[in-house]
Amino acid sequence: MPRRSSAREINADRLWSRLSELSGIGRSEGDGVTRLSFTEEERAAKDLVTSYMREAGLEVREDAAGNLIGRREGRVEGAPVVLAGSHVDSVRNGGDFDGPLGVLGSVEALQIMGERGVETERPIEVVTFTDEEGARFSFGMIGSRAMVGTLAREDLVKVDKDGVSVAGAMRDSGLDPERVGEAARPEDSVYAYVELHIEQGKILEDSNLPVGVVTGIAGPVWLRFILTGEAAHAGTTPMRLRHDALAAAAAVIGRIEKEAGRTGTSVGTVGQLDLEPGGINIIPGRVSFSLDLRDIDEEVRDRVEARIAAEVARLCEERGIALETETLQRLPPVPCSDLVRGAAGAACEALGFGPFELASGAGHDGMQLAGLCPIGMIFVRSKNGLSHNPDEWSSKEDCAVGVEVLYRTLIELAREL
Amino acid sequence: MPRRSSAREINADRLWSRLSELSGIGRSEGDGVTRLSFTEEERAAKDLVTSYMREAGLEVREDAAGNLIGRREGRVEGAPVVLAGSHVDSVRNGGDFDGPLGVLGSVEALQIMGERGVETERPIEVVTFTDEEGARFSFGMIGSRAMVGTLAREDLVKVDKDGVSVAGAMRDSGLDPERVGEAARPEDSVYAYVELHIEQGKILEDSNLPVGVVTGIAGPVWLRFILTGEAAHAGTTPMRLRHDALAAAAAVIGRIEKEAGRTGTSVGTVGQLDLEPGGINIIPGRVSFSLDLRDIDEEVRDRVEARIAAEVARLCEERGIALETETLQRLPPVPCSDLVRGAAGAACEALGFGPFELASGAGHDGMQLAGLCPIGMIFVRSKNGLSHNPDEWSSKEDCAVGVEVLYRTLIELAREL
Repeated sequence: MPRRSSAREINADRLWSRLSELSGIGRSEGDGVTRLSFTEEERAAKDLVTSYMREAGLEVREDAAGNLIGRREGRVEGAPVVLAGSHVDSVRNGGDFDGPLGVLGSVEALQIMGERGVETERPIEVVTFTDEEGARFSFGMIGSRAMVGTLAREDLVKVDKDGVSVAGAMRDSGLDPERVGEAARPEDSVYAYVELHIEQGKILEDSNLPVGVVTGIAGPVWLRFILTGEAAHAGTTPMRLRHDALAAAAAVIGRIEKEAGRTGTSVGTVGQLDLEPGGINIIPGRVSFSLDLRDIDEEVRDRVEARIAAEVARLCEERGIALETETLQRLPPVPCSDLVRGAAGAACEALGFGPFELASGAGHDGMQLAGLCPIGMIFVRSKNGLSHNPDEWSSKEDCAVGVEVLYRTLIELAREL
Repeated sequence: MPRRSSAREINADRLWSRLSELSGIGRSEGDGVTRLSFTEEERAAKDLVTSYMREAGLEVREDAAGNLIGRREGRVEGAPVVLAGSHVDSVRNGGDFDGPLGVLGSVEALQIMGERGVETERPIEVVTFTDEEGARFSFGMIGSRAMVGTLAREDLVKVDKDGVSVAGAMRDSGLDPERVGEAARPEDSVYAYVELHIEQGKILEDSNLPVGVVTGIAGPVWLRFILTGEAAHAGTTPMRLRHDALAAAAAVIGRIEKEAGRTGTSVGTVGQLDLEPGGINIIPGRVSFSLDLRDIDEEVRDRVEARIAAEVARLCEERGIALETETLQRLPPVPCSDLVRGAAGAACEALGFGPFELASGAGHDGMQLAGLCPIGMIFVRSKNGLSHNPDEWSSKEDCAVGVEVLYRTLIELAREL
């Protein structure tokens, strides 16, 4: 049963002070935070979260994939666990809330349960997932894949831009990649997963609401296009005789923008681009660039992808450019479960906010966890919708409302006695 | 008087073997040669050239800008010197001929003079100029600027991509940047400058000729555009609300291609592009890219530049992108002197090739030297017109013809006794 009181129970000052302390790790003044997976910065962030978990009275461990777990026991032995969590790794030059709010909010919710003597049938675990963002290996949700048992051997050989593999990075941080399978949870051992996260968009802001309940998560396709033309002297090669890989890439980027834009719902982004040889007076001979394409509707997304693929092929053909296309990741959109939507919606309602429902354009670990258990998410309003940006911001008040909703949702899912 | 004999005098085997030995320095198999200025690779190349200069009986020194000079005395004391030369620095992943042919061809010409006992009124110097290409600091012709006395204090603070300044790089290689002014030659101390170089284009190949005489050098403008939009999450920011700096840059690159292309003579190239923050799932907030724009006609070039500038401003305005434009270099087209054109043309004619005249789309140290003395150039046919590319190629026979023309031109300019 959802609690009917609208009184605030969580400790907003403690939450805010922890968010602030965590945001100092990996921070570069003016350039936001950078905490890539398996780095010193991520380690320091996990160590700080460990200290908070202990303050909250949780039993702390790390699994074989480096997921940091804080557990609060339930009363019924062998009952499936309720998971709450998020991540502390960040993109390069990211913000203070994407990830940390869900981790620290979950710790806060469990700490308050302890302080108020709330007892539940089911155990609850806070999970800090390893590498949600994919900023290091262009491949994310590593910890949640491991927990579901879908992290494959070929995923571990993916490399970062310095040529370090996932397996190598795991070894460097004291993990044994051979044992990553041990992080997989047995079927039926998990009751539900709920994640508190900033919206990273402008919908709640436009709707004048601090929180919302997520209906589903858009499915991203990540591709890499490699265009090979001919490097040549910039001063002596007439325009009509060029096979300029960057000029071809520029034409493709224009088409991506157009094809994604005309659906109204799809988003297409070229976030990485490298060229060779890179001399100011040399026509680029080779360009490699990424595409992140998403839609909440898989059919629409796949139609846009097919149009873009046809355009890339046509533009490269016209310009005498050789084309290779690699698929880095392809995830279907994932609906949130009625179980979690219902619990979170009731909590919002009890607090006098909505419930208001919205889709997630961003990917989250819940997409992986959906293979294991019912999932759901609670979103907190983001100022100007900014995220993956040093100016990412959610107010202390909105964060507190989000944690309050999470607290009530967890109590409902774990069944208070 | 030009020599009327068409018999070959220079030693083509020696020339070819030296070209081959020099091309091994800074070589990476399949990726061509990389010899950036003030590096170990450039030092090794200069040391090898020094040994050849000594074999040729030249008096060797380095000036305060690191220009490596081999001198052959003339008979008339105090007579202005005839300069011949080129460079041994390269672009990244460049070829074997751009620069080395002119340096080793000049050494060969002077060595043959010695072997044949040719005496001249004027002294002749072979110069290996420091950093012609500008591949390291996006600013080239450093040695020739110093020789003319136009290398400014503010040029020395330009930095490479690791943040090392020209002055710092000079210091690292044992030069004193405070003394660079000592490399400047007094007015009237230089009689003429002639450079042998590969064409780096397809005109001689199309004309079925091994050599040509250069009429003038196209003037490059080097700009850097810095576009600042807003980094944001790739999944949650609708297309219509984006300020994507890369999408704006792509539109600009398309306009540059179009505006340069429609003149028929101008060439416009974006050879460098960097973006931030560079995450696969982050909309690029900042993109910086270069433009190399050239024409043999300054008016045409400036008109294209103005059109591009207007288009960049318009596209950035439309997209809510802040624009900064930096001028890295702006050189007027430089005509070759009648003195050198005449001497080189007569040498070509005596050998039965033309004379055939053509313009240079590429920049060369002669553009700087023109501030000091009459200049001219001799071009050698390039296979497929390729240059700044590992596949750059001129045949042994064509290189030998070029050096033969240079040899006769130098004898004419230095006045054989």
